[in-house]
Amino acid sequence: MGHSDMTIDQTKAREPLAGLDLPQAINQSAKAVDAVLEQVLPSPQGPQGRVQEAMRYATFAGGKRLRPFLVLHSARLFGVDDAHSLRVGAALEALHTYSLVHDDLPCMDDDDLRRGRPTTHIAFDEMTAVLAGDALLTVAFEILADEKTHPDPAVRIALVARLAEAGGHDGMIGGQVIDMLATEKFGVDDVINLQRLKTGQLFEFACEAGPILGNAAAEDRQRLRAYAREMGVVFQITDDLLDVTSTAEKTGKAVGKDADMGKATLVTLLGVDGARAEAEKRAHAAIAALGPYAAKAPELSGLPFFLLDREA
Amino acid sequence: MGHSDMTIDQTKAREPLAGLDLPQAINQSAKAVDAVLEQVLPSPQGPQGRVQEAMRYATFAGGKRLRPFLVLHSARLFGVDDAHSLRVGAALEALHTYSLVHDDLPCMDDDDLRRGRPTTHIAFDEMTAVLAGDALLTVAFEILADEKTHPDPAVRIALVARLAEAGGHDGMIGGQVIDMLATEKFGVDDVINLQRLKTGQLFEFACEAGPILGNAAAEDRQRLRAYAREMGVVFQITDDLLDVTSTAEKTGKAVGKDADMGKATLVTLLGVDGARAEAEKRAHAAIAALGPYAAKAPELSGLPFFLLDREA
Repeated sequence: MGHSDMTIDQTKAREPLAGLDLPQAINQSAKAVDAVLEQVLPSPQGPQGRVQEAMRYATFAGGKRLRPFLVLHSARLFGVDDAHSLRVGAALEALHTYSLVHDDLPCMDDDDLRRGRPTTHIAFDEMTAVLAGDALLTVAFEILADEKTHPDPAVRIALVARLAEAGGHDGMIGGQVIDMLATEKFGVDDVINLQRLKTGQLFEFACEAGPILGNAAAEDRQRLRAYAREMGVVFQITDDLLDVTSTAEKTGKAVGKDADMGKATLVTLLGVDGARAEAEKRAHAAIAALGPYAAKAPELSGLPFFLLDREA
Repeated sequence: MGHSDMTIDQTKAREPLAGLDLPQAINQSAKAVDAVLEQVLPSPQGPQGRVQEAMRYATFAGGKRLRPFLVLHSARLFGVDDAHSLRVGAALEALHTYSLVHDDLPCMDDDDLRRGRPTTHIAFDEMTAVLAGDALLTVAFEILADEKTHPDPAVRIALVARLAEAGGHDGMIGGQVIDMLATEKFGVDDVINLQRLKTGQLFEFACEAGPILGNAAAEDRQRLRAYAREMGVVFQITDDLLDVTSTAEKTGKAVGKDADMGKATLVTLLGVDGARAEAEKRAHAAIAALGPYAAKAPELSGLPFFLLDREA
């Protein structure tokens, strides 16, 4: 398993954390972004209340809010007010949630269970799930466009442009298409390309949102983006590892699905040990990409090895 | 039928047209916006090419591009460059197209035919149709956010905010939910409320886009919005009239569907003559709402009675 190596790496990697309790930091950030989501998502009202109810059902499902966490801490590096970055985190989480709702549909992954609860089309119906997804995607841009997100319209429109790109046909949606058409012939590069689009693009947006909000230099934007790219691979590998090593009880969703569906992942291609080694390599690369910001943002530099440890 | 009355009204209403050939003006506008859509929509490329192909299939289906026509002419009133308004029209058409793709899905209206062609989920598959719709919605905001749409970020973000509102859970999507849950008990006010959301909101955006692009006074924005509201009712009634009086050959889609599904429309509630009378009243109200702009924009003032005449 190379587990002893990993332990050493983790110890080293954790040095810059300087006593930071990362699970607690993630929890705090999740609570803060949930409070914003509570405000910005509509309350069920009128005859269209059913879709607004479904938007909330899908969103408030006990997620770790990892993407808003990345927005928050990439933004703090550049002196951005939490009130602004949390709204961007809320917009991103709305968009991420829409993608889960649509991915779970019978015509896509056909999942009945997510985070231990019935998926939206099971709890409501398929039509409501399609429309709630559409509405969550739309409200993401509405949140970004609101002047409460940032006083400078140029900053807000830069966020809109970047999120539309990250979530679009050459970003997350493109990745989803490739995933759906993926065959057993997929090699390592194909899988990395697929995942860089499907899950990586939103991580890249999350980490770039900080420098965008803080009007930081292009170089800083590149640094955070490079961090996100490597961290995204770590996230995906650990997600795929959980699919083979964990239980449905812990993850709250069906496990062993990738292998059942003959879907290539880095775990099926490299084996558990090989995939874990690749993830460790990527975790180091992520921290290195942060450069001087690794020490300034232990929440960011601590995350990759924290993900490697996760059990759910 | 009150047909002679209508003829008199039309003659009066057409006076300000001053020789304008409205069908030709609509055709010209459609060609211009199609050229922009050709540029801004992605060309199928790479393994995600299938969804980009579906985006184009759904978009280039020979529509009249009525919403971009409204953007173009509401913008000309305020001295806006056509290059800017046509991009807003293209964004709006992308969003409108996504709504048609998702509405046609088996879990919604379950339509196999639109504009005489197989709907997107028939021509491709359901998964591709869901994702192509998502991508069209996303690209709409990407187009608006691009600086080519307007040099001023404040104008671009105002367009994003307004489109997200018009297309969101309290706008078009809200209307779609109400429509899906509509019962035979629906009265005239229920139907008008439903349609004001489902189809009306995008017309309102189209007509407000001009004053937004032109940094016009709030009063002008109100005028154009009031015009759009009345014109939207005319559009919807004539659409519903076509459903009972036309043939599938002319409209390119299944007809008689509303009655078959027990769906209340102003035509089922007021009868053909009553609905037509209501539409005429609304057509006059639309022109009146334009005030001084009725004479300056014969394309806008001529449209309501043109719609009343349409056969497809």
